[in-house]
This record gives sequence, C-alpha cells and structure tokens, in this order.
Amino acid sequence: MKLKQISLQPSERIDDLLTHELGIIQSEEVFSFSMDAVLLARFASIPRRGRILDMCTGNGVIPILLSTRTSAPIEAIEIQPRLADMARRSVEMNGLEQQITIREGDLRELYKETGYGAYDAITVNPPYMPMNGSDVKLNPYQAIARHEIHCTLEEVIEAGSRLLKQGGKMSMVHKPLRLAEIITLMSRYRVEPKVIRFVHPRANMEANMVLIEGIRDGKPEVRLKPPLIVYNEEGQYCDEFMDIYFGSYKDDEEE
Amino acid sequence: MKLKQISLQPSERIDDLLTHELGIIQSEEVFSFSMDAVLLARFASIPRRGRILDMCTGNGVIPILLSTRTSAPIEAIEIQPRLADMARRSVEMNGLEQQITIREGDLRELYKETGYGAYDAITVNPPYMPMNGSDVKLNPYQAIARHEIHCTLEEVIEAGSRLLKQGGKMSMVHKPLRLAEIITLMSRYRVEPKVIRFVHPRANMEANMVLIEGIRDGKPEVRLKPPLIVYNEEGQYCDEFMDIYFGSYKDDEEE
Repeated sequence: MKLKQISLQPSERIDDLLTHELGIIQSEEVFSFSMDAVLLARFASIPRRGRILDMCTGNGVIPILLSTRTSAPIEAIEIQPRLADMARRSVEMNGLEQQITIREGDLRELYKETGYGAYDAITVNPPYMPMNGSDVKLNPYQAIARHEIHCTLEEVIEAGSRLLKQGGKMSMVHKPLRLAEIITLMSRYRVEPKVIRFVHPRANMEANMVLIEGIRDGKPEVRLKPPLIVYNEEGQYCDEFMDIYFGSYKDDEEE
Repeated sequence: MKLKQISLQPSERIDDLLTHELGIIQSEEVFSFSMDAVLLARFASIPRRGRILDMCTGNGVIPILLSTRTSAPIEAIEIQPRLADMARRSVEMNGLEQQITIREGDLRELYKETGYGAYDAITVNPPYMPMNGSDVKLNPYQAIARHEIHCTLEEVIEAGSRLLKQGGKMSMVHKPLRLAEIITLMSRYRVEPKVIRFVHPRANMEANMVLIEGIRDGKPEVRLKPPLIVYNEEGQYCDEFMDIYFGSYKDDEEE
C-alpha cells in the first residue's frame, strides 16, 4: 500500500483492502466492514459515467472499492458523524478526494438537496436487523450500523427510489430471512428486482446473504444467478469466491 | 408396476413413476408431466392428517406422488375435462380411489363449494407463461396447461389463500423469472413465503426453477435452502438430485 499519512483516532487501525493498493481505516469499537460489503461492491452494476451513490456507507469501504471499477464521481452518505469522519480520512488516505465525496447526513432527506432522480446507480448495505431493543451488548455506533434505528428497510428503498433515475440501478446486500420484504418493497417503490444472487457458506447450507439489484421502473423479470459458494468440501475458499473476494476479480459486466 | 387395467385413449401411454410401483397415463398431444411436478411433490410440506389439495393438477401426477408420503385424503382440481379424465383413470389404475379425488372445475370457484380455509396444504404447478398469444404452435390442451389462459398467477395465489387454513401451507413450483411477482402476490394474499429453493441445471448456471412454500398468515421470514443442482461437471445427475428424483427419496421432514 502507498497511502498518504492521516491521523488515527484511538482504537483505529489501517487495514489492507487487498486490491489496487487501497487501505481503509477500521475500528472494532466503531465499525469494521464485513464480507457483505465487498461482495456488494463486486456485484453491483456500476456505470463508467454518470453519478453513483452509496447509502449507509459506514467507513466508506464500498465507494473506495467501487473507485477501481469506474471513473464516475461517487458520493456516499452516512448518518453517524464519527463514521463519516473515518470514511473521509480513508478517502484522503487513498488519494481519492477527487472522485469520492462523503456526505454526513440522513439518506431520507438527501433528495431535498439533490432533487429526484439524481443518480444512475445506488449501492446500499443497510442495517440488517429490525429495531427490537434486544441487542443490548452493542455500543451505539454498532447498534446504529446493525439495527434499523435511523432508517427502516422501507425507508432505505423509498429513498433509493426517489434518488434513482428512470432505468437507474439499485444494488443491495441483505439477509435472505428478509427476502420477501425486500422484494415486496422494491416492487412497491418501483425499483423492480432484476438480478438476484444468493451466497451460501457451503454448497449444502442455506444462504446467509442475498445480493439483489433492481431497476427503477424496470419490467418484472428476475435473473437468478448461480449460487456463490464460499467454502468447498475441504473447508477452503472456492475458486470463484477467491476471484471475487481477493483481488483477482476482473469486471466483465460493466457497461 | 402392478396396475389395474384401464382404457387408454388414442395417443395415450402408461409411464412408470419409478417409485412405489406407481404408473401414470401420459400423452404427448395432451399433457405430460415434467421434472418440475416431481420436485414439487418432494419439496412440499405434507401433513400426515388433514386435507390436501393439488390445484392445476393436469394428469394427476402430483396427488399420485403425494400418496406415498401421507395417508391424508388428497383432492385435486383440473379445469380441462380431457385432463381430469386422464387423472381419474390414473388414480383408478393405481388403486388410489379411496385416497385421491379428482375434481373437474375452476379453482377460482372451489371455495364456494368447500368454504374458506378448508385445506391444510395446497400444492400447485401453475401455467408459467403470461397470456400473450405468441405461442401459436401449442394445441389448446398444451396452451391451457402452459399459459395463463384460465387463471393468472394472481388468481392461483388468491384461490390458494382463500382455501388455506390459518397456518396451512401452499407450495408452488414456477420460473425464477417471475419470482418478484410470486413473492409480492403471496405477501399480498397473506400466504407468507417461508421456504425457497432454487434449481440450477448446473452449479455455474442461472436457476431455471424455483420451489416456494408459504404459510397462511405466517410471519415474514424466509429460509433460503441450499441450491438443488441437477447435473455435475461431468454431465451426470448429482447425488442429491438422484435421491430426490429417482425413488431413493426418503421423507425426513414430515410432521
């Protein structure tokens, strides 16, 4: 990694993103990205030109990874000031300030600033868990990142729908448990589900992740991609997963 | 097979169902079941007691296969008289008249006779294709079986919703292309999608079949089962597929 010097807060460390010599500021106490974010950054359809938005960006891992796939400007929005600050410093550390803009704010209000239909592509790795008050071990940073405290699934999809151009694409990673809600809400807000891929830890296990892409005002027709299997029978990463996750990834589906 | 003698119409033949010495009357000109029906008959949750209905039953392959999994009474409804007659003769040929009743009629009207909430479990392999008049090569029997001529996907799901008890289960096989519609409609008619399994011809190919089970008035929580892969890399049937499709199937999920 050839990274610019930036200041780190207590508990923060710099991790290697294992591609294009990119790094990222992480913190166990505040926010660390997971496999989900990386898979979303590889799965999403990303235009070469146009305007891209990552919602619920956390420490900015998705826009930083997307910067290797497009020269289009990428904006990212995060409601937690502490995380937006981490994301901004990570962008600076990677010298990506010209391409990536981190906004601190509420995704539900963003359309008031940008107008409707401002974006060609949106990515989002939203909080997975409904708000139920049961997860008392989490600190507030973690609770907001994982639970629907500041925005529900419906609000995320409604916001995406407002912000997407007609024909624009929204890609999300989520839990299969909530698949019926996701599809129902995407259809309701006219971000028609078009491409779905499930991630299974092993070929004989239930899926624990779903990648889903919808098109604003698209026709209802789903392509159900081959399953993405993480580990083979010997407990090693499968070849395709390695290709996608660890840098040997080549994008053959860009526009 | 030890089958009773029944009369065959021109173009009809008797095929072996490869399990429990069951046979079925088929006709290329009128109706032949496909892999989809067999997989649905294995996938569906079927109670040991209670009342079971197969909608759009065609030549009755699903109720005949289900008879090996339960001693509960099974009803089946088919709108085409020619097919209902084939199904009845197949039931008779297998000596299953005590367990299986074939109704000739319109599934949209059945609730008027049975009342709401009459069934504990419903299976359906509905016509896959929307009505668009493009498939002119089909004869009328085939066209009705494959296209939404007599009932749309929404009418099938609405009928199932009316006919299911609270907590009753509806299982369907369909095309992944229509997944968003299926899930949206099941949610709308309160047959909440709970278990989904995709069938892929090969591990690296898109799914061409979806098996989906919903529960009347269930809580929205989807279990996304491991993918069912038909052929391995050598072009042979995968072990699990063999087990399910060719008779070595054992039911370990009954109530």
